[in-house]
Amino acid sequence: MKIGILGTGNVGQTLGAKLLSLGHEVLLGSRQRSNEKAVAWAQQQGGGAHEGSFADAAHFGELIIVATLGTGTVAAVTQGGPENFVGKTVIDLTNPLDFSQGMPPKLFVGITDSLGEQVQRALPGAHVVKTLNLVNVAQMVDPASSGEPDMFVCGDDAGAKDQVTKLLQDLGWKRITDLGGLEEARATEPFVLLWVRYGIKHNTWTHAMSFTSAQ
Amino acid sequence: MKIGILGTGNVGQTLGAKLLSLGHEVLLGSRQRSNEKAVAWAQQQGGGAHEGSFADAAHFGELIIVATLGTGTVAAVTQGGPENFVGKTVIDLTNPLDFSQGMPPKLFVGITDSLGEQVQRALPGAHVVKTLNLVNVAQMVDPASSGEPDMFVCGDDAGAKDQVTKLLQDLGWKRITDLGGLEEARATEPFVLLWVRYGIKHNTWTHAMSFTSAQ
Repeated sequence: MKIGILGTGNVGQTLGAKLLSLGHEVLLGSRQRSNEKAVAWAQQQGGGAHEGSFADAAHFGELIIVATLGTGTVAAVTQGGPENFVGKTVIDLTNPLDFSQGMPPKLFVGITDSLGEQVQRALPGAHVVKTLNLVNVAQMVDPASSGEPDMFVCGDDAGAKDQVTKLLQDLGWKRITDLGGLEEARATEPFVLLWVRYGIKHNTWTHAMSFTSAQ
Repeated sequence: MKIGILGTGNVGQTLGAKLLSLGHEVLLGSRQRSNEKAVAWAQQQGGGAHEGSFADAAHFGELIIVATLGTGTVAAVTQGGPENFVGKTVIDLTNPLDFSQGMPPKLFVGITDSLGEQVQRALPGAHVVKTLNLVNVAQMVDPASSGEPDMFVCGDDAGAKDQVTKLLQDLGWKRITDLGGLEEARATEPFVLLWVRYGIKHNTWTHAMSFTSAQ
């Protein structure tokens, strides 16, 4: 499948490399074409790896992944051209974290909205699915490295959620819970506040969460 | 130690019974003295178990636990008489959940506040510690029944947090992280949104969360 990724940071690069290894074609998109990091990544990865603008990534992808900083998410998808996302599944893995007052971060979206819903409003023709935002990229592409973590998907289109769930399974995720509509991102995004704080206190950034019930 | 509990529901009763079994004296407080459930509980538990009003519980306790519904938390501690809490450690295990629009619940406190901080403002002389709000009461008093869960404490008084941490250890908690000041309740309270949704989807109410890092 052709996958467009918006964001050329560690998340986009690592996820892109993993998706290439699974046989997908990947275009890493940045604010402008020929972004230094994206060019280096595409050269290093070789066949099937491309780079371009946010709009190039959105146009290229049959499925699109938004992997920018949360503060740049809505701007990135808007710059990508909402028309390029129409009818497509869009994975939003970003978090509404505000680092402007230092660590630990606060949320910049209140309890009656979510960043996932903001992405959906910016891309009215797309099928946005919120997922993967609970862990670092090393765990996104290798969840078993941190136990048997739980992952959640939420979105308003059942077909898009099925597609994303299969992709998550290809990445190694086994415990995937469909929480319902995209509004449920209001429950998964704030979790990251706790994740970051645990990371600071225990000096770990590979942690992933799981629920265990009584036998 | 003398422990006053505000709230005569399942949480107050079960936690009270466990604390009695650990050798503490417990007064279960309700809006009015001679609450039917509290009287039955005290009779069933026998020596060391008492019942009374919220004010009785607050006056009685060297340590006080707020175990009401979140919507009644601030009213309960206010009715308990702020003067009765002065200089004492207060465990707030309640959650700001709004069930008025049905399941799943929403939060009724926004991202720039927490219910824990509201309790602290209502009880300016007390040392409020937020904890135990992540699980059902069966796991509060027997965490090992659901794996090796994580628990968090936050509060503005170091001595009070030490006291609460020891009490948690007596209850069986082993993985306890001090997140910092009471403001960190803004990170732990929203977690319960995710906990409830997981419970609904998997039809479990004994689940507890833990973080696992890569080896």
